[in-house]
Amino acid sequence: MSSRSINPGILNELPATTLSRLLATGQCSAIEIAEACLRRVDAREAEVKAWAYIDPEYVLRQARARDGESPRGPLHGIPVGIKDIINTSDMLTQFGSPVYRAHQPVNDASCVSILREAGCVIMGKTETMEFAVCHPARTCNPENLAHTPGGSSSGSAAAVADCMCPLGLGTQTGASVIRPASYCGVVGFKASYGLINRAGIKSTSETLDTVGFLTRTVGDASLLASVLIGWEYSGIFNKYDNIRVGICHSSYWASADAGTIPMILNAGESLREAGCDVSEVSLPRPCDLATEAQATINLYESFRSYSYERSNFPDQISKSLSARFEKGKGISLEAYLSAQQVLSECRLKMSLLFKDFDVLIEPSAPGEAPYGIDNAGDAIFSRMWTALHLPCVSIPVLKGPSGLPVGLQIIGPMHSDKRTLEIADQIHRMFA
Amino acid sequence: MSSRSINPGILNELPATTLSRLLATGQCSAIEIAEACLRRVDAREAEVKAWAYIDPEYVLRQARARDGESPRGPLHGIPVGIKDIINTSDMLTQFGSPVYRAHQPVNDASCVSILREAGCVIMGKTETMEFAVCHPARTCNPENLAHTPGGSSSGSAAAVADCMCPLGLGTQTGASVIRPASYCGVVGFKASYGLINRAGIKSTSETLDTVGFLTRTVGDASLLASVLIGWEYSGIFNKYDNIRVGICHSSYWASADAGTIPMILNAGESLREAGCDVSEVSLPRPCDLATEAQATINLYESFRSYSYERSNFPDQISKSLSARFEKGKGISLEAYLSAQQVLSECRLKMSLLFKDFDVLIEPSAPGEAPYGIDNAGDAIFSRMWTALHLPCVSIPVLKGPSGLPVGLQIIGPMHSDKRTLEIADQIHRMFA
Repeated sequence: MSSRSINPGILNELPATTLSRLLATGQCSAIEIAEACLRRVDAREAEVKAWAYIDPEYVLRQARARDGESPRGPLHGIPVGIKDIINTSDMLTQFGSPVYRAHQPVNDASCVSILREAGCVIMGKTETMEFAVCHPARTCNPENLAHTPGGSSSGSAAAVADCMCPLGLGTQTGASVIRPASYCGVVGFKASYGLINRAGIKSTSETLDTVGFLTRTVGDASLLASVLIGWEYSGIFNKYDNIRVGICHSSYWASADAGTIPMILNAGESLREAGCDVSEVSLPRPCDLATEAQATINLYESFRSYSYERSNFPDQISKSLSARFEKGKGISLEAYLSAQQVLSECRLKMSLLFKDFDVLIEPSAPGEAPYGIDNAGDAIFSRMWTALHLPCVSIPVLKGPSGLPVGLQIIGPMHSDKRTLEIADQIHRMFA
Repeated sequence: MSSRSINPGILNELPATTLSRLLATGQCSAIEIAEACLRRVDAREAEVKAWAYIDPEYVLRQARARDGESPRGPLHGIPVGIKDIINTSDMLTQFGSPVYRAHQPVNDASCVSILREAGCVIMGKTETMEFAVCHPARTCNPENLAHTPGGSSSGSAAAVADCMCPLGLGTQTGASVIRPASYCGVVGFKASYGLINRAGIKSTSETLDTVGFLTRTVGDASLLASVLIGWEYSGIFNKYDNIRVGICHSSYWASADAGTIPMILNAGESLREAGCDVSEVSLPRPCDLATEAQATINLYESFRSYSYERSNFPDQISKSLSARFEKGKGISLEAYLSAQQVLSECRLKMSLLFKDFDVLIEPSAPGEAPYGIDNAGDAIFSRMWTALHLPCVSIPVLKGPSGLPVGLQIIGPMHSDKRTLEIADQIHRMFA
């Protein structure tokens, strides 16, 4: 091991991209990173409650094993938290539900296995809402423990925000990555629908469920994406001139807290000053129907996905989830297909709109994290984008009236994940 | 129980729609149906080898329980075989792979649970190829035991063809429902992509995997579809005048056996005589690229879906599947996205083409089932339709030179599953 300038005590606070360089140059070891993360867990977990399952000894065993191997790539030795609706062959996977309190999967989800192949240390399973849908997790927001971290990727967002690990996997069917990222003041990235394989992830809504990440830098999200989506990671981001930014005036702006829209308009002003080509944009019809279509589809599909749990464990399903299932049962095939038709039209229209814009921006959530942990907040600012299958990044550059974070959401064209992350990184730096 | 005209010894030979009426009028019981099916299994299973798991006592227990209840709907008391890549909470689910030889899922797949809710008797698990992809099942074709039943829904096709049960669930990523239906002389139905929930089915290729059925009548497929897709089942089919039939001249006609295309042209002639409006149609560009796009996508996605099995059990994966994984590894994100782009364009073009046609027809397979069980046959006549997400029905109305069955494939517009089944039923009757 060569000369060391890094205090191992703060390794848990560094981004994965930095850790990767330190590991590659022998300035730290995987075991030191794991120890720093575990110290933080030890100090804070009783309050934050980010983890549904964590075994420190097992984390250390993995890290030791990684230190004994030749590096497999830029994620080698980096700890990652896994949302607890994602199967792990060596850790319980409870889906946030008492139905699965003793559930030990026989295999890893595709995304977990690919991260192991890349040398990641699987840190543990992070708390989620009931089936990533309803009853909130017990997790608290590290920014202010009296507030919700948002959901459903609650634990991944809180663990990463609290520097218990640099990387967290999440999933989004409505707002489950972008909203907790916004509330916890971290970066959230939801990939384009379909680009990250979902084998081994509990299915809620087949045409909506999408894998995403919680990280502290856009660079870290890009590193994870390079491995899970599959492009060469160089550590160097392309830079863009005159980025064309559309401030997205969506039909649900009225749902935002009083100060939020002015903050977004201000952010647009800052981007203009930083050289972006900023304009306001109204979405083409029928995008005004997309959020409702998302709800119809989500209810219809999840009623079917959870047929086994509904039939066999009605008493172990929360009242709010049971009520959602009842609603889903009432939706006809015709209503479902017509919602899918609306979304097909919107996707075509959006692909045309993106000829004039590199990215759109809007708030990641209506405002700050609500008080209390029984309400994971409103999903309204993400449901449409999830349904339109577009890549979204939330960057923590705004503050609400109580000083809690609010994310700026950056939306890119379908399948432009690499470019959208590069632009989001560039925009993030404009606010630094 | 009222007056009986039915010999219980032949209940296994009757379609589910008939059994449903007999049950409803007290002319037979679920236990009598189960016994008749089990007698057939007992007589023939040693030769046909359709079942990966079957426990006769448990089948009888289920049937007895159904007889003791008030009927839940038209499928109440009807036995169904489940392809062994579909999870069952009470039966091993081996995915056709030694990796999962002792695998007992903790839950039912959505489709299994919905069938149980509807009162079905789950008969057992039917043989499949390795992960429904490669190494053939041990199943033989009941029409001629020296021939393949096709794959990968081999066991469901053989069990239904041999009258061991009236209904079988299958899945199709390439040709895995339509091909075995064609080879075994039964009806195959592959639903529109996405209409039947896939939660709890082993994922191979997320954008291709589709649930389908093996039955002996189109009416039975329609009955199953009414429950699993979700429309009211009346037992009465709409009738259509002047059905506009396109004989689909696809780019792979040259792959058909010598006699197959003339048979299809003859079938078109018969349909014309029966009052259909029949014409030949060439598919719009870029449909000539769709079959290759299906291959690219299948290889890319399955390489990722099976990451866990690849990494942890390389010695328990067949050479042919390992070779496929190697090919999948070599496919770039760009190549994958460009294949998806081709399919998006084809889907739009096909929706326009279907303004002029009610259905298209072509062979279900290149010809008769090949000799031997080591070769499940060529998937070429289905891969494009699977990739285009269209509903397809195979009806057993043709015979090859050795007297083995060849299916006539009927393809309908996206999401027109009910109508396509009604038209397929009407066409089937034209050949009676």
